[in-house]
Amino acid sequence: MGRQGKECFLDIKLNFILDNRLQADTFFVGDLPLSRVLLMNNAYFPWVILVPRIEGISELFQLTEADLETFHKESNYLLEAMSSAYNADKMNIASLGNIVSQLHTHVIVRYKSDEAWPNPVWSFQATKKYDDTASKIEIDKLAQLVDHYV
Amino acid sequence: MGRQGKECFLDIKLNFILDNRLQADTFFVGDLPLSRVLLMNNAYFPWVILVPRIEGISELFQLTEADLETFHKESNYLLEAMSSAYNADKMNIASLGNIVSQLHTHVIVRYKSDEAWPNPVWSFQATKKYDDTASKIEIDKLAQLVDHYV
Repeated sequence: MGRQGKECFLDIKLNFILDNRLQADTFFVGDLPLSRVLLMNNAYFPWVILVPRIEGISELFQLTEADLETFHKESNYLLEAMSSAYNADKMNIASLGNIVSQLHTHVIVRYKSDEAWPNPVWSFQATKKYDDTASKIEIDKLAQLVDHYV
Repeated sequence: MGRQGKECFLDIKLNFILDNRLQADTFFVGDLPLSRVLLMNNAYFPWVILVPRIEGISELFQLTEADLETFHKESNYLLEAMSSAYNADKMNIASLGNIVSQLHTHVIVRYKSDEAWPNPVWSFQATKKYDDTASKIEIDKLAQLVDHYV
């Protein structure tokens, strides 16, 4: 995997290539130390996808202990930050990967008034693409959270 | 239910009361240091629910840092152990809680041949209750994983 030894000194994440479907369905928000943060292009829900920038991994338990710790820190940060920034009724988090095998985790703001409530978002088949203005607003809002990651 | 013995009696989490719906929909498997492990009574999927034995919590980020670390260790252990024990094609993990507010996390074995594949299990509305023999086999198998937690 090239993640040991000198390669780490250079940039362990250089080999990372985002899955085509994730690329097509999302907007780039920013990079946390381990994970790429993407906004799902579905205006029905404030919905972020975290992708650890590591090749060839499809399960959380395949991450090294150190990377898993970082990933949990990042996902927990986003859960709390998005809950607050969006005044969520509930946060949903899930790592499924039945269709896209590249390891990724959904972090979703839920409201009791949203279209799918109380079901998981995947039970609601419709999607609504952001227009340019709306996507920019969401990306900027989320990028601020990413920028304030500690 | 015979596994809730003196361990629980001495447990610091004595105030913990399992949500009624979780109680009704599951079988008791065992207790990890922080989480109660339950088997979902749906024979379509090997499906476990982890419930941190802490009252009044509905979001992962409401756990203390130490409890969150323990919880992540426990959920990751079960992900890997169940993946191996069940020869899973994919593991799914999710913390939703839109209906049952008590913090709980789903850990689900998925097969490309299962009834819901590749959709999330929640998209598949049918359930099939275990008979007594089948539930005992599953509970025993999972309890062995719980017993070997390190």
